[in-house]
This record gives sequence, C-alpha cells and structure tokens, in this order.
Amino acid sequence: MASDAEQKETYAATLKSIQEARERISGFAHVTPVFSSCCVNQIARANLYFKCELLQKSGAFKFRGACNAVLSLPKDIASRGVITHSSGNHAAALALAAKIQGIPAFVIMPKNAPKCKVENVKRYGGKIYFSEPTLESREEIAQDVQKQTGATLIHPYNDTRVISGQGTIALELLEQIPELDALIVPISGGGLISGITLAAKSVNSSIRIFAAEPKGADDAAQSKAVGKLLTNSHTDTIADGLRASLGSLTWPVVRDMVDSVVTVTDDEIVKSMRICYDILKIVVEPSGAAALAAALSAEFQSKLQEESLNHIGIVLSGGNVDLGVIGDYFN
Amino acid sequence: MASDAEQKETYAATLKSIQEARERISGFAHVTPVFSSCCVNQIARANLYFKCELLQKSGAFKFRGACNAVLSLPKDIASRGVITHSSGNHAAALALAAKIQGIPAFVIMPKNAPKCKVENVKRYGGKIYFSEPTLESREEIAQDVQKQTGATLIHPYNDTRVISGQGTIALELLEQIPELDALIVPISGGGLISGITLAAKSVNSSIRIFAAEPKGADDAAQSKAVGKLLTNSHTDTIADGLRASLGSLTWPVVRDMVDSVVTVTDDEIVKSMRICYDILKIVVEPSGAAALAAALSAEFQSKLQEESLNHIGIVLSGGNVDLGVIGDYFN
Repeated sequence: MASDAEQKETYAATLKSIQEARERISGFAHVTPVFSSCCVNQIARANLYFKCELLQKSGAFKFRGACNAVLSLPKDIASRGVITHSSGNHAAALALAAKIQGIPAFVIMPKNAPKCKVENVKRYGGKIYFSEPTLESREEIAQDVQKQTGATLIHPYNDTRVISGQGTIALELLEQIPELDALIVPISGGGLISGITLAAKSVNSSIRIFAAEPKGADDAAQSKAVGKLLTNSHTDTIADGLRASLGSLTWPVVRDMVDSVVTVTDDEIVKSMRICYDILKIVVEPSGAAALAAALSAEFQSKLQEESLNHIGIVLSGGNVDLGVIGDYFN
Repeated sequence: MASDAEQKETYAATLKSIQEARERISGFAHVTPVFSSCCVNQIARANLYFKCELLQKSGAFKFRGACNAVLSLPKDIASRGVITHSSGNHAAALALAAKIQGIPAFVIMPKNAPKCKVENVKRYGGKIYFSEPTLESREEIAQDVQKQTGATLIHPYNDTRVISGQGTIALELLEQIPELDALIVPISGGGLISGITLAAKSVNSSIRIFAAEPKGADDAAQSKAVGKLLTNSHTDTIADGLRASLGSLTWPVVRDMVDSVVTVTDDEIVKSMRICYDILKIVVEPSGAAALAAALSAEFQSKLQEESLNHIGIVLSGGNVDLGVIGDYFN
C-alpha cells in the first residue's frame, strides 16, 4: 500500500485540480439541483438525493469535463480545435464547450449511436465523422482527422482535465447535502467515478463510494474481483453510455478507492427509469438510471443495513434518450 | 365597468386570500423551481421561464388548491372526509392532502381516466368510485357518496379555497422572476388561471395574462369571443386535464382580467411535449405542455412583437402521463 503522498501523485486528479476545474467552469456549467422524493425513499428504504446531471448543459455531466478540458488549452492550440470519439454525450458536451470558445469540434461517432445524441452534436455545431461501432475504428478515424486538422484529442474519460471536471459534481453535492454517507455513481470508462471519488474522499474520508455497472458490460466488477484491469470483450446492455471499459488513469482510482461495484440488469435499469419518469418527473437515459437501479438492488439493500447507510447520493448522469424508444421500454 | 372595490368583492379570491393560502400550505406544498433554456428561448424568440408544477407534490399544481381547501376545514367537518369528482390530478392531490391530515378522501373518477392518474389516487389512499365519462354521471355519484359519508365536496376548480391555493403559484413566480411581463397559463375549469390572474395582477397590474386552451375544448375562447359563459358540448383533445368547462366563479376573472385565450392543436401540444422531454428533460402531460404550445403558436408569436413582450412565465401544470402512451405520441 502506497503512502498518502505517493498515492496522490499516482492518481489522475487531486482535490486541487478539481477545485481549479470548478473555478474554471463556473459560469459555463450549471450547478445542478438535487431532488428527493418521499415516495422513492419508501421504495429504497433510505434517503436518496438525486444529483440531476441530466439538467446539466448538453443533457449530461459530460459538459463539466469537456468544458474544463477546452478551457485548459492554451489559445494557439485551442484555435486548431478539439476532436474526440464518443458514444455521444461527451461528443455533444465537447461540441458545446468548443462552440462557447469559438473553436471547431470534430467528432467521431459510431454509426449506431442514438439519434438524439447525433442530433445533440449537430445542434452545437460539431462536425461528425461516423465510424464502425468498434473502439479500433473510432480511434483510427480520430487519428486521421487529427493529422489533417491539428486538433487536440480530448479523450472521453482517460484525461486528467476531464476527470477533474467530472469531480466537480462531488464538491457541489457534498455542499448541497453534507450528511451523505454514501454515493452511487454509474461506471463506464471511469472518468465520472474517478473524479467524484477523488473529490468526495478528500472532503469526507469516510464516505462510501459504490459504482453502478450493467451486467452486460461489467469490466469494472471483473477487474475489481481479480485486482487487475480487464476490458469488455463484448457488451450487451441498453445503457449505451456504459459500454466503455476502464482506462489506465481511471482504473487505479477504482481499484484503490471505490468501495464496491454493484451490477444491475437491463430490467432493473428500466424499472429505475420508470421511477424517474413516474415519480421524479425527470427524463433519464438508461445509463442515467443505473445508479438508482443499484440502490434498489438486493445487493445494495443488504449493504444498507450492514453498514447503517442512511443518506445516499445518487448521480443521475444524463437524460439524452430517443423518445420513440421510451415507449418500447415501458410497454 | 365596476369600480375596483366592487370588482374585488365580485371575484372568487383576493390577494389576501391567496397570501393566506400561501401561509397555510407552506411546509406542505413545494416551492417549485423555475427552469429556463437557451435552446428553448431560441425556438420561442423570447425568454421563457418554466414554473415546474409537475415537480409539485402529487405531480401537478392541484395539490396547492386541494391542500388549502383541506387545511381550511374546521376539524369536526374535516373528520368526515372530503370528496371530489375529477379527471385525476385534483383527485390525487386531494387524496394526498387528506392523507396528510389523516382524514378520508372519496374520489369519483371517469372510467376512462389515464391509468397513472388512477394509480396516483390509490397511492395516496383515496377511495375511488368510477363513473361514466360525463359530468352528469360524476356529479350524481358524488352526491350519493356525500349523503352516505357526510364528506365535504371540494370542487376541482369552482371553489374559492381551491382558486386561492392555485394563486400561490403567481406569488412565488413573481418573486422568483420579477421581470416577467406576461404569463401563459393552461385553462380548463379555470381555477388555475383565476387564482394566478388575481394574484399576478395584484402584484403587477401591467402584467399580461394569456390562457392556453386546446382547440378541441375551447369553451374559454368561445366564451371570451361572445362575452358570455359557454360550455363545451363535447371535447376532442389529448389534453385530458383541459376538457372541463369554466365555472361560475372562474368565468368572471377570465372575462374581465385574462387578456387573451390562445388555442392550440393536439399536434402543437405534442411538439411542445417533445421540447420538454428533449431539451428541458422533464416529464409533462399533454395538458402540462399547452402553455408552451401557446407560446410557440403563430398567434402568440405575433403578439410578442406587437406588445414587445420579452420575459414570459410559462406554467407547466403537471406531469402525470401514462409512460406507454408517450412512445405513441413521439413515434
């Protein structure tokens, strides 16, 4: 086990870099509200506090990291633009951050990305290149475009600026609800949970952090189980935002500081989406509902009692979903 | 034209009764948030401020009036319970208000009420009696149950306590966004718009009030046109909460103080629901989206310019919608 000082150098972000990100994106990103509901608390047998990142600009938390990354670039480098490959929410967020700075954004998206996520990128003026739905195809096209344009690659999660930006959620949430004793955060590439964990444990070292992961893309659960970074060989989940695998910068945080990974089925995700729509009256995408699904799972419900957890922060990460698809889920 | 003093006695509520209602329901009802969006403002060519009554307890503004009515009852009368006939949102709101006070609520609902609205009444412990989908059938059954139980009838809108409760929305909204120069409010039986109009024009006499009404249930537009209270002989709209006709207490306010009624088609309502889901990320029912539909209509867009209106309050009245139906609307 490394000492505290060594650990801090090891990880991709620090409380300081996250505080600086907060300062940087202030006035650009929303301080999102926290919702709660007696009805949902009854179902969950705990007090849940929903951090509504679906109400963030661009409809997802991704704007925080993208905005911090864009605003961190020196002017001459920024002017050549930014580029990314993403299933969608990071792409739209980066396009919006670039638009605000008046620089171009080049986006490589898989052909099968949800229509609304493609529309979001277009809405913010991003230039789209479609790839095959594999990481290899995306990265190859990204490299080509980068060579042509000189744009800076902003990775969706394996980037310290992005991780620091996402961590600002925890600083806000722990000010909004200081009594939280646990957080549940969806996990995919790990940028969101890394930033949040580094920030939250710096502010409150005893806070417990749980990752919510689809069973059909459970690289984090598998990696934690064997103590070694594994990647998804294939994925099968409706949570299109949670299909990525952990990266070299995010895995160490998940390995050392995330307390546990709770896996959830697509059925559990749909059930949680229904609660968000029916009771909270907010639009969440499947990935966005994963943390609530984890909170309601038998696995977490037994942890609640064992560990006497009462006040749980739930990160509802985004709300970009094709409306036509919603009816199919709920019928 | 009656003098100011005479007028104040004529109308169903006063600034004082609305302020008292606010005091009474404080701590029971939510002070709902106001949302805004640059993207929506671009579409609407004005600054829109969305008063999110879908986030009110029971999922609609109706809780304000129901709660004020229940809390206004003397204890011995309250103990026998309350009764109403309603298309749903008032019913659920009354059931919740009664539950909070520990008294029974008896609810007569039309057989064809949306499933989620029936579920909402059940969730709050209301006792349901189903009627034919006509006002006559509802009122007949209500009278029978009232005779048996001694419960107090709380009309969905033709009730001064209810109207005063709904008016609290305007007091909140004009404090939240003092620069508003117009409000758009959905109209059905008129309880919501009467309360809001009486409150808003007391606080700011120059504020303009527009009613949003479905073309398929346009008794208010027809009544305003001829200066005489007319009722809908039949209705044809997806906005199930806007099918009622104005009442004796609400018509005078609409006649004298509502500036104009803007009618909207079901297609316009669906388009506005889509904007709420896609951009604002909130769940609205068809009735709840009517005011935004009015704001985007050609009729209102020309008024915007003629009258130099810049800051428009939009009352999103409720969010109780069957999720299975949403997909049908949006496909």
